[in-house]
Amino acid sequence: MLLRLSTLFVRTLREDPADAEVASHRLLVRAGYIRRAAPGIYTWLPLGLRVLAKVEAIVREEMEGVAAQEVHFPALLPREPYETTGRWTEYGPNLFRLKDRRDAEYLLAPTHEEMFTLLVKDLYSSYKDLPVTLFQIQTKYRDEARPRAGLIRGREFIMKDAYSFDIDDAGLEASYLAQRGAYERIFTRLGLEYVIVAATSGAMGGSRSEEFLTPTPIGEDTFVRSPGGYAANVEAVVTVVPETIDFTGAPAAHVEDTPGTPTIAALVDLANADHSRTDGREWTAADTLKNVVLAVTQPDGTRELLVVGLPGDREVDLKRLEAALAPAEVEPAGESDFAKNPVLVKGYIGPKSLGRVASGDKKAIRYLLDPRVVEGTSWITGADEAGKHVFDLVAGRDFTADGFIECAEVRAGDPAPDGSGPLELARGIEIGHIFQLGRKYADALGLKVLDVNGKQVTVTMGSYGIGVTRALAALAEANHDDKGLAWPAHVAPAQVHVVATGKDPAVFEAAESIAQTLSSRGFEVLYDDRPKVSPGVKFADAELLGVPLVVVVGRGLADGVIEVRPRVGGESEQVPLEQASDRIAEIIEAL
Amino acid sequence: MLLRLSTLFVRTLREDPADAEVASHRLLVRAGYIRRAAPGIYTWLPLGLRVLAKVEAIVREEMEGVAAQEVHFPALLPREPYETTGRWTEYGPNLFRLKDRRDAEYLLAPTHEEMFTLLVKDLYSSYKDLPVTLFQIQTKYRDEARPRAGLIRGREFIMKDAYSFDIDDAGLEASYLAQRGAYERIFTRLGLEYVIVAATSGAMGGSRSEEFLTPTPIGEDTFVRSPGGYAANVEAVVTVVPETIDFTGAPAAHVEDTPGTPTIAALVDLANADHSRTDGREWTAADTLKNVVLAVTQPDGTRELLVVGLPGDREVDLKRLEAALAPAEVEPAGESDFAKNPVLVKGYIGPKSLGRVASGDKKAIRYLLDPRVVEGTSWITGADEAGKHVFDLVAGRDFTADGFIECAEVRAGDPAPDGSGPLELARGIEIGHIFQLGRKYADALGLKVLDVNGKQVTVTMGSYGIGVTRALAALAEANHDDKGLAWPAHVAPAQVHVVATGKDPAVFEAAESIAQTLSSRGFEVLYDDRPKVSPGVKFADAELLGVPLVVVVGRGLADGVIEVRPRVGGESEQVPLEQASDRIAEIIEAL
Repeated sequence: MLLRLSTLFVRTLREDPADAEVASHRLLVRAGYIRRAAPGIYTWLPLGLRVLAKVEAIVREEMEGVAAQEVHFPALLPREPYETTGRWTEYGPNLFRLKDRRDAEYLLAPTHEEMFTLLVKDLYSSYKDLPVTLFQIQTKYRDEARPRAGLIRGREFIMKDAYSFDIDDAGLEASYLAQRGAYERIFTRLGLEYVIVAATSGAMGGSRSEEFLTPTPIGEDTFVRSPGGYAANVEAVVTVVPETIDFTGAPAAHVEDTPGTPTIAALVDLANADHSRTDGREWTAADTLKNVVLAVTQPDGTRELLVVGLPGDREVDLKRLEAALAPAEVEPAGESDFAKNPVLVKGYIGPKSLGRVASGDKKAIRYLLDPRVVEGTSWITGADEAGKHVFDLVAGRDFTADGFIECAEVRAGDPAPDGSGPLELARGIEIGHIFQLGRKYADALGLKVLDVNGKQVTVTMGSYGIGVTRALAALAEANHDDKGLAWPAHVAPAQVHVVATGKDPAVFEAAESIAQTLSSRGFEVLYDDRPKVSPGVKFADAELLGVPLVVVVGRGLADGVIEVRPRVGGESEQVPLEQASDRIAEIIEAL
Repeated sequence: MLLRLSTLFVRTLREDPADAEVASHRLLVRAGYIRRAAPGIYTWLPLGLRVLAKVEAIVREEMEGVAAQEVHFPALLPREPYETTGRWTEYGPNLFRLKDRRDAEYLLAPTHEEMFTLLVKDLYSSYKDLPVTLFQIQTKYRDEARPRAGLIRGREFIMKDAYSFDIDDAGLEASYLAQRGAYERIFTRLGLEYVIVAATSGAMGGSRSEEFLTPTPIGEDTFVRSPGGYAANVEAVVTVVPETIDFTGAPAAHVEDTPGTPTIAALVDLANADHSRTDGREWTAADTLKNVVLAVTQPDGTRELLVVGLPGDREVDLKRLEAALAPAEVEPAGESDFAKNPVLVKGYIGPKSLGRVASGDKKAIRYLLDPRVVEGTSWITGADEAGKHVFDLVAGRDFTADGFIECAEVRAGDPAPDGSGPLELARGIEIGHIFQLGRKYADALGLKVLDVNGKQVTVTMGSYGIGVTRALAALAEANHDDKGLAWPAHVAPAQVHVVATGKDPAVFEAAESIAQTLSSRGFEVLYDDRPKVSPGVKFADAELLGVPLVVVVGRGLADGVIEVRPRVGGESEQVPLEQASDRIAEIIEAL
């Protein structure tokens, strides 16, 4: 395979695209691998398509290696199955919906659980047919609120999605582990560092799920790790619940004037100044109970207020809260929400206003607590009146709530839920997600088979996704420097980039001969044969394009040598012309 | 490659699907290659996907063989470029349109001229960059009014679309011929019989276009051929225009009573009975001028009446008329149209009512003539009054029109426009269409480059499509019998289908060994290893699935032989077990 830069459909750009925030986006556009067609929607140019094909081939091989069978579903799907499972509504504005000429409703599929379930129902009827795992590598659509970072969060993208079908839980576990193993091999072969973290299932439903994240500071996902090996997406971290406290003999709650303390910081300062503790310790933010008002919008559009109570030293983490309330969306309450609910005195909200004081009024607004607010803990919190707080308010004695919720930020140093030590936080890009769905979709769509006793049983399912285009972007993100891309050999668009410099026809003849010899030996060669382009531009392009090995045929030719240099690391090497293709082949094979 | 039927995700059906009208649809569904997901939208099962991949590979190789470079565009595209070229409207209800969450308008692309034009504009700026031909193999969408025949007219389908960009007409011609040659090689390699016919450009625009049709009685397209080699889609046939006739001394037009003659047949009978000709010949339908009222709807929804005048022995061909009026749609005028235009006396409409009689009234409705109605031809036609016709009405003397239009049916025996003899009619499926677009898209979207003199010139383009999924259906259509599919070897999902019959473990061992040996020698093997399925069912499945070579391991094994038989034609052969894989390999390679 020999690609000539004189005719290859590519143009490199010296300037970063205006909308590019991250290196992969910037460089893939500048190097002419992709072009933006619309927000979050990209066109693949020849070099990009070559890399994509290699990533897909690795994914396909490993899927086939665990006996998953390839099929291919449409992207344009009828509403009905998604209506049946509720996802037509649950996906909210993330779903592209449209009507055909007869006003029948369709969607552009964001994922295909429903269709795979129906297909297996259509074809299979007995436990003897199971297990089966099917997959596709296919174009998906999500109308993201904020498409960003090029291919990392797009609206049209390629996914490998696989679905397993088993007769029982043990079968599902085995199918899940087979996919998990294939994912490990895929990301290893791609050369992508990955961490497997416990995850929430979100709108997908199901019992167990794990994410494959590739660590990078530009990642959208935050995850935690402990020294003892615990790892989880931050949304999935379960707070370690303290033991309850015996509140016998605890002082009674008392309301105090706390003028000008709508913030936790002001409140703590005033408390330390005017209401010092009997134990000599200083009040801290952790002694206060902060009540935060949020608006929760269900996929069907209904909007309700929710108050969450959490220790004053922690912020609400909206992503964790949304994961806990999926598929609803959450936003901070607005001015008009407060205006409509005068009982909520901003900066001074207490459990009482919510009707949760033991002696309190009728329930009005849903109230959920951080799991740390266990029975017997004592708090300074709002007294539902401007400039007043209540002290020594004891959970379980003086107030209750509708339940607990994971709504608080996770912080470095928090204990791992499995006791494996303090957590550290890092960021990553989600490149894979595997789910034990269980029977949610099979139940909704009636996928049953006869078991060994001739009884109809509901099939249990798993769902397994890899963001193929996103993995490619993650590879670019992990393999670049300030000069350009630097592909690992197994996904690079070519293995060697031959550059002919200067104007001497002998140089071009020699370069052409090397390029053709390597190509005929089965290597993929990019040959910069452009006649009137300066060596500086050619070298800069070679660095931008990121082919792993660069061969320069130029001045050295007078001395009978060419130069071979790896795109990153390693030393450049002078090779006698007559040994060129043998030596280059050797180096490529060692890459 | 070894696929075992015991685990392969496939189920054959004994019954035809209710909606299947044609063999390819019926058999691809029954053999478990595809499944319907919605009207005109199909899912590919493992066997179907294997065939599809082979067809795609042949298309890709031949595209690369003429130096076309592969790219990949999104299917979801913004409205703007299609608005600029007018196709957002012109496509009418055939276009799937949708809005994103910000109410921006998008479409699911039916073809990508606009995007390719913009991409080349984005990357290229000089004549030195040209010529370039780009292609993609990609999913397309058309909201067909009547999806039918399975994959033959679908709403989501796969196309190979290529686009050439040249600096001048000679370049376009060369690019066009290169694609044309590649198409010939593709269809030859696929084993699809094809005819290249002159075609109309329709909504695509441009100067020259040809279709590749594969002849089949179930085809939707009618085409013509002459003994001398002329071939055209029936829409593109140009009527041979007779010479004008000197009408000096022709009798004057005269209105006659012709009660009860709203049809041509009745009119001819009455004319022969009551108004016999002076030359002794009988009147025929060809002596009458039939005026047909139609309603023409433009893509923007405006609707106007049109009257076409043609010899009474020919029907209006709506597809030819629509091709001439593209992108408008045409339908026969309805009762309400006549009610609103009392001047149109049904069955007795003449040029006079249309204001086209030389002495006539003001123009009211657009009137176009079949090209045969040349100056000096004399006609019996309506007198715009019930029960009256006018005789000896001479074109050019007594009436004129707004012009001529190709609206009449083409009939077997009509002369070819190039004088190459009488036409014969046949039906075919359009599997490819190539266009010389010229500068329509480049003009609309501003694609210019600097020419050799440093002057901005508009690029000239070609567009070249192959219906990949449709070609696969055409292959199934051309390669089947009443028992099932019968794939040519180069596109079959496997090359050999090994069937183990009976219950003897020795049979299964021998079959397994043959299957594995062939697979390890690089052949694609489908192995029917199902333990409890009768030989009859296995043979029927083998015939339905259509793998070209069937190997039966069964009773003969006791005598040390197996049976090898081609799916169609040829003799079955007893082969000694020990020579089995060698002999099978030989036969496969000869296929």
